[in-house]
Amino acid sequence: MNPFQFHNPTRIMFGSGMLDQLGSAVSQYGSKVLLVYGGGSIKTTGLYDRIMRLLQQANVEVHELPGVEPNPRVSTVRKGISICREYSIPFILAVGGGSVLDAAKAIAVGVPYEGDIWDFFMRKADIHSALPLGTVLTLSATGSEMNGSAVITNWEDQLKKAIGSIHCYPAFSILDPALTYTVPRNQTVNGIVDMMSHVFEQYFSRTTNTPLQERFCESILQTVIENGEKALHNPEHEEARANLMLCGTYALNGGMISVGMENDWATHMIEHEVSAIYDIAHAEGLSVLFPNWMKYVYKERLDRFVQFAVRVWQVDPAGKSDEQIALEGIQATRDYFTRIGAPSRLSELNIDAKELDRMAKETVRFGPVGSFKALHESDVRSILEMSL
Amino acid sequence: MNPFQFHNPTRIMFGSGMLDQLGSAVSQYGSKVLLVYGGGSIKTTGLYDRIMRLLQQANVEVHELPGVEPNPRVSTVRKGISICREYSIPFILAVGGGSVLDAAKAIAVGVPYEGDIWDFFMRKADIHSALPLGTVLTLSATGSEMNGSAVITNWEDQLKKAIGSIHCYPAFSILDPALTYTVPRNQTVNGIVDMMSHVFEQYFSRTTNTPLQERFCESILQTVIENGEKALHNPEHEEARANLMLCGTYALNGGMISVGMENDWATHMIEHEVSAIYDIAHAEGLSVLFPNWMKYVYKERLDRFVQFAVRVWQVDPAGKSDEQIALEGIQATRDYFTRIGAPSRLSELNIDAKELDRMAKETVRFGPVGSFKALHESDVRSILEMSL
Repeated sequence: MNPFQFHNPTRIMFGSGMLDQLGSAVSQYGSKVLLVYGGGSIKTTGLYDRIMRLLQQANVEVHELPGVEPNPRVSTVRKGISICREYSIPFILAVGGGSVLDAAKAIAVGVPYEGDIWDFFMRKADIHSALPLGTVLTLSATGSEMNGSAVITNWEDQLKKAIGSIHCYPAFSILDPALTYTVPRNQTVNGIVDMMSHVFEQYFSRTTNTPLQERFCESILQTVIENGEKALHNPEHEEARANLMLCGTYALNGGMISVGMENDWATHMIEHEVSAIYDIAHAEGLSVLFPNWMKYVYKERLDRFVQFAVRVWQVDPAGKSDEQIALEGIQATRDYFTRIGAPSRLSELNIDAKELDRMAKETVRFGPVGSFKALHESDVRSILEMSL
Repeated sequence: MNPFQFHNPTRIMFGSGMLDQLGSAVSQYGSKVLLVYGGGSIKTTGLYDRIMRLLQQANVEVHELPGVEPNPRVSTVRKGISICREYSIPFILAVGGGSVLDAAKAIAVGVPYEGDIWDFFMRKADIHSALPLGTVLTLSATGSEMNGSAVITNWEDQLKKAIGSIHCYPAFSILDPALTYTVPRNQTVNGIVDMMSHVFEQYFSRTTNTPLQERFCESILQTVIENGEKALHNPEHEEARANLMLCGTYALNGGMISVGMENDWATHMIEHEVSAIYDIAHAEGLSVLFPNWMKYVYKERLDRFVQFAVRVWQVDPAGKSDEQIALEGIQATRDYFTRIGAPSRLSELNIDAKELDRMAKETVRFGPVGSFKALHESDVRSILEMSL
C-alpha cells in the first residue's frame, strides 16, 4: 500500500424523496442558480418541471444552460461561464448524467479564472477555486456525482481531455434511482460498462498488499454484474437500479475503493482519443478496448488476473494453468459485455484504421500512458489494431 | 436499501511521512492549539517530541490536556473545555487512540455551548456547532478518526453514553501505521475485536437488498481476520499494520460501508453499561458479549448468518442445515477471538452477577435497544447471563 490522501466532501442524498430537499440545498448558496442540463429528456419525464417548482418555492432565480452534448464541448462550457459572469450567479445545479455534470464542473472552474477554461485541460494552469455546484443524477455511470473530475471535448481541435481538483467535488448530489427508470437501454448498457471500466482502472494495479481495496473493487464488479442484467431485463427494477446507482458512485468517488493503489487509466486515455475524433459514447469505446487492453497487459501481473477470474467471474481454477485462468477471466468480461449488448469491435462503430496513427500519437501527447504497463505510441497502436 | 444521506468531510492523510505535514495542517486554523493525549505513551515513543517540534516550527502555541483515560471521563472533558475558553483556543489536536479522540470531540462540542457538556449525552441538547479538530492516530480500533461519534463516561453517575454529529468529524486525521508498532499486545487484540464488532453492528441488519454493502462489510472482516494474527505475531509487520489501520477506519467512518442499511448497535449499548460500572476495555466487553448476542438473535435472519459463515469464515455448507451453518459461523467468531487472546466470559474480567439487573435496566433507559432484534430489559439480562 502506498501513502495517500483521501478527502471527499460531497454530501450524498440517496433515495426517493431526497429531491424534495433540493430547494433548501440550493438556496443556502444564494438566490440565483445556473441550471445545466442536456438534450431535454428531463422535460419529457417531468423532472424539469418538478425542479423548477422546487427552486421557485425556495425563491431561487433560475438561469438555464440547456443542450449539453453527450461528449460535452468546451464551447458549451464557455457559454455557461458567460452566463454565470453576466448574472453574478453563485451556484450551479447540474441535472443529468456524467456529461452534464462534467460540463457544470468545468463551468464552475472557469467562472473565477481570468484566462480561457481550456488552459486547465492543456495543463497550462492549475485549479485554485471554483463555484460550488450541486447535482441531480439521472444516469448511473460516471461517478461524476461524487468526484472532482471532468472530461470535456474541444471539437475544433478534436481533443478530449480531463481535469481533476478538490474544488470540483459537488457540494451535494441527489441520487434517486427512480429517475433512472426511463434511461434508454443503450445508455443503461453504457453505464454498466462505464462503472466496470472505472473499477478496472483501479483494480489492475502494480501496487501490492492492498487486500481490502481489491475486495472492495471485486465487490462492486460482482454487484454490477448481478444487477446490470436485472435492470436491462426490467428497467423499473427498483433494487437493481438502486444497486447500480450506488455502484456507479462508489466505483469512482475520489478513489475510496483504491486508496494507496497506483491507478492505470491508459484505456480511458486511449478511448478519449477515439471519441474525440468519432462521436461515439465513451463507454462504447471502453467496451471495445478494455478486453483488448487486458489481453495486451495481463502477463505484467498474472496473479491479479487470476484473482479477477476466480473471484469476480467464478472461473473454476481446477486443472488449469494461471495463464488459462487469466484468459478465461478476460473472455468472461468480453462475453458479459456482448451479452448486455455492448460492442466488441471498432468496426461495429463504423471506425476503420484510417485515424489509428493520429489517435495513438495523441494518446501519448503528455508521455506514455498507464502504470500497470506503461504504454508507448506503438503499444497504443497495437491495442487499437486489435480492436478494429 | 433505505434512503440515506452520507457526508464524510474528514481528510485522511495515510502513510509514513504524512506527519510532517502536521504544522501546516494545524496552523491554517489559527496560532493556538489544545493538544489532547492519554497516559503518556506518546512521550516514551518520542511522538510527543516530534509533534511539539512540528507545531513549534509552524509557530503554533501549544496548550496541553494530558491524561485522558482509556474510558474517557466527562470530568476530563470539562477540564479541556475550560482550557480552550480561558486561552481562546480555536483548534484541538488529539494524539492517541479512540479514547483520546472521543474526548477531543466532546471538548470541541462543549466549548461553544453555554450549558454543561453532559447535556448532549443525556439528550437534553442538540449539537449545532463545535471547534474544528484534527487527529494523529496511534491505535487502530474505533474509527473515531473518520467519524462524528464520541463515547464518554460519567464516572460519578456510572453512565457511559454516546454523541454523534456532523460537527464532530475531524477536519483531518493523520494515519501512520508505523505509529501502531509499539501498541501493547492486548490493545492490538482489543482493536481487532473493536473493528470487527463495528462491522457486525452494521452487517447484521434487517434491511434487504444491500448486496454491495454486505460485500464491503465482508471485505473488512476477512481482511481484519487475515491481518490481525499477522500483526500479533509480528508487531512491526508493516503491511499488516497498514491493512488493520485502513480496516479500522473504514469499519466505522460515518456508515460508508452500510449506507441505506438499518444498523443495530445493541451489543455496544449493553457493553457500555458493563464498562460504565467495571473499568474494563470496551473491546473486552464486546469480545465476551458479541458471540452471545449472535446466539440470541440469529434466528431473526438465518440467511444473513449463513452468508456470514460461508463468506467470512469459509464454513463448508455441504450437507448441513442452515442452522448448523449459522452456528458454525458464530462458533468461528468465538474461536477467533479466543485464538487472539480476547476474553469469552465476564468472569475472566472479574465481573459476577451482582450488577446484572442494574446494567440491563440502564441499557434500555431510552427504550429497547437494537433493530436486528429489539432487545428489552429481559433480553439484555439473558445475554448478560449467557456471558457470565
